[in-house]
Amino acid sequence: MVTPRLDAASEVPLYRQVFDYLRGSIESGYFAPGSRLPAMRDLAHSLNLNRSTIAAAYELLEAEGLVRTQVGKGSFVIGPSPGDGRLDWNNLLGPLNGDTPPAAVGPDTISFASARPSEQLFPMAELQETVEEVVHGKGAPAILQIGPPSGYPPLRYYLIEEARQQGLMGPDDDLLVTSGCQQGLDLLDRVLVRGTQHSVALEDPVYPGVRNLFQRSGARVVGIPVGDEGVLIEELERVLEQERPRLLVLTPNFQNPTGATIPLEQRKAVADVVRRLGVVLVENDIYGSLRYRGEDVTPIKNLDEWGHVVRLHSFSKMAFPGLRVGWVLGPAPLIARMAEAKQLCDLHTDQLAQAVLLRFVETGRLQDHLKRIREAGRARLNAVLNACQEFLPEGTEFTRPEGGMNLWVTLPEPMDAEELLPRAQMRRVTYLPGKYFWISRRDRGTLRLSFAGLTPEEIGQGLRLLGDAFGVAAAQPAGLRMEPAIL
Amino acid sequence: MVTPRLDAASEVPLYRQVFDYLRGSIESGYFAPGSRLPAMRDLAHSLNLNRSTIAAAYELLEAEGLVRTQVGKGSFVIGPSPGDGRLDWNNLLGPLNGDTPPAAVGPDTISFASARPSEQLFPMAELQETVEEVVHGKGAPAILQIGPPSGYPPLRYYLIEEARQQGLMGPDDDLLVTSGCQQGLDLLDRVLVRGTQHSVALEDPVYPGVRNLFQRSGARVVGIPVGDEGVLIEELERVLEQERPRLLVLTPNFQNPTGATIPLEQRKAVADVVRRLGVVLVENDIYGSLRYRGEDVTPIKNLDEWGHVVRLHSFSKMAFPGLRVGWVLGPAPLIARMAEAKQLCDLHTDQLAQAVLLRFVETGRLQDHLKRIREAGRARLNAVLNACQEFLPEGTEFTRPEGGMNLWVTLPEPMDAEELLPRAQMRRVTYLPGKYFWISRRDRGTLRLSFAGLTPEEIGQGLRLLGDAFGVAAAQPAGLRMEPAIL
Repeated sequence: MVTPRLDAASEVPLYRQVFDYLRGSIESGYFAPGSRLPAMRDLAHSLNLNRSTIAAAYELLEAEGLVRTQVGKGSFVIGPSPGDGRLDWNNLLGPLNGDTPPAAVGPDTISFASARPSEQLFPMAELQETVEEVVHGKGAPAILQIGPPSGYPPLRYYLIEEARQQGLMGPDDDLLVTSGCQQGLDLLDRVLVRGTQHSVALEDPVYPGVRNLFQRSGARVVGIPVGDEGVLIEELERVLEQERPRLLVLTPNFQNPTGATIPLEQRKAVADVVRRLGVVLVENDIYGSLRYRGEDVTPIKNLDEWGHVVRLHSFSKMAFPGLRVGWVLGPAPLIARMAEAKQLCDLHTDQLAQAVLLRFVETGRLQDHLKRIREAGRARLNAVLNACQEFLPEGTEFTRPEGGMNLWVTLPEPMDAEELLPRAQMRRVTYLPGKYFWISRRDRGTLRLSFAGLTPEEIGQGLRLLGDAFGVAAAQPAGLRMEPAIL
Repeated sequence: MVTPRLDAASEVPLYRQVFDYLRGSIESGYFAPGSRLPAMRDLAHSLNLNRSTIAAAYELLEAEGLVRTQVGKGSFVIGPSPGDGRLDWNNLLGPLNGDTPPAAVGPDTISFASARPSEQLFPMAELQETVEEVVHGKGAPAILQIGPPSGYPPLRYYLIEEARQQGLMGPDDDLLVTSGCQQGLDLLDRVLVRGTQHSVALEDPVYPGVRNLFQRSGARVVGIPVGDEGVLIEELERVLEQERPRLLVLTPNFQNPTGATIPLEQRKAVADVVRRLGVVLVENDIYGSLRYRGEDVTPIKNLDEWGHVVRLHSFSKMAFPGLRVGWVLGPAPLIARMAEAKQLCDLHTDQLAQAVLLRFVETGRLQDHLKRIREAGRARLNAVLNACQEFLPEGTEFTRPEGGMNLWVTLPEPMDAEELLPRAQMRRVTYLPGKYFWISRRDRGTLRLSFAGLTPEEIGQGLRLLGDAFGVAAAQPAGLRMEPAIL
């Protein structure tokens, strides 16, 4: 059983969230008919909730006829009565994937678990002005009408012009607006991978949304190890030679989860090897605008003269993640096919969001906002690097990103970041253990710290608590140091 | 070559649109290296554009090195020089599908071609107020932050509560917000069809976005004939018995393209047969709120006690199609799997659009708007039925919908709606010939008239022009009546 996504800030009461989660687990077959649910006390402990909250959820399960509680024995899952003409959905669907990272529990927990910008930095007044200008503008009715699959034309032309000025867009290229970077990846999967026998090469560790997408589509996913300077080029060449994957997906700047940036020389080597082997390179530059230190490095797209590189970008990390607008820039025949696929996916991306973001960037407000979040990011990055140095146990290694939202920590052996998580959460601090990010490698000591959504004070306090949790563990003899993880 | 989507109202000049289209056709391999483009005069004629517009597009193609024009001979496609290390995208991708309906040409053309609401009926002041309330509300930062894949929680709870009150939502059901109905269908394809050997049963004729989606995913698509009262039940039973498809997709109200509504008795028969044969029924009720005459009929979901029915709905046809928000309601295990798939598609649906539509419905503004568009729809439906009666040639048959946006016309034999289209477009009126909607049947005399976006005056005038175009043809002896269609 994975930890449910609980949100204490939600309007849904926690007991109801626990109920929903357990109901889902019963219906997905995770808890089979006749099996016993975890004891309330154990579940309360592992979810960091009051036992009365769990009891309310169990009562609701019983009221809904999903479980039968026997005093002193526990709560047992009631099976669907067979042969009543009901469709057997569990049989039809198979079990849920379930390999989804847990969300933070409790509002007073310092969460390093989510790579998202801080809501406190959202420029609300500027956004309000922008939205008002858009809905009162002459073009408003056209924004509300159905639009073209390739994107809201004024935004698309703006992005094309900007890409031309940055030298990213050649005469053979075209651009498609997507519902965020994730959709860009999904469309690439549809057009280039799905239904073929091709494999896909990804960074290892990698953002799970990329790995799960290609694995779910049935592709063989191969990982290329990432070091402090991004993918290891010799490994990359070896894997590409051997696998001849259809796609290679790289995050050139501030990779998620490691924060690593690929230096110029390695980028040239990447452009060279994909050309030599006929591989399509997806340059997923979602974090590229969030550099807090050092100098920008030339995009791989600019180093490619042979039409092998497709670039993904998005407004979501630099502005408002709730507005789902990204774009794909690449060879026109590919973009045409992706636009065709997009029309079958969702007709087109929401036009209000597109128009709002266009106005936000056209008026210079995005640039002003970026300046402010880069300054804030710099302070947060300094804070996390200093606090890692100060509080993490001796022998801990961590990456030193120059931007983005994430930093990758490797605890000294034999420490296990997943086993240590409940200990951290008891101290009201949380993170994601490395296991969510690996493809083929495993290193139990690894974990991701996402620092962009926290203030420097929260970062310092959070790492002090983490250091405390890890330090106690480090001081105990191996083999005796942990209670077994219930969830 | 299919007719390009030209938009005279766009900010992109028409010559540039023609250029983009031709470039795409060259790059997709439609016009192979060495082949000759259509003569300018012919293309100008068939697109209803000035010859100078076409000439400008051809000049640009030449300037971009895509064609070479030889005076008196024509314009020839220049091939890519092979063996230069460039990736051969056309080989990688294969040809574009290309079976996309053409868009209307020219701003002074009366277009019956697009099933969309009229922009003139958009309640702009109410929408402006709604948007302002949302972005100034206390919840605005949370709306702009990343959200859950199942939907913006307050909207999701609202829709669940509404569905409960309508008796649509049983204790075993759950609800997922999607980026419009199209995404609902795509997620169903992902979770239930793709990668299996199952077939999918659809109405014939049907909305091409549904047919193309399942065909592209590799499913065998079988059509069930639609009459004045929706799918023919005997045919439905025969096909389901024989094919045992995984999915059956039906539009219970005001089907696109026929406008047909399935009566209660037939709905009961559908619920019965899908239960008996273990087929999942997708009740795509996108037009259900647009009834102009008669009485609402009980949704099939309400007639199903065995968990076989999944319901799709959307705000797009009743409010603003540019805001992409729909929802899926069905058995909880299915919804859980669709939410998982959605997260891999696009993380979640745009939250600004979700919050705006929630506010629009919560404040009663949607209901007021629906009243007004139902009144307008009634007048438009009356106009189109009267004008069909008055102007279409003797022997023409047409459906008599009680709501929605579309009406289906069958011209008397041997008339061919596709052949007649250029004749109509010369008179500045356009429609979609039946061929875009058929699955296995073909009836050359059929065409779809989408009337919801036109005023009663435009509808009358448009049908007068259509009657003129068709009447001239009807008066000519068969075999001699048409110039060959160039496009």
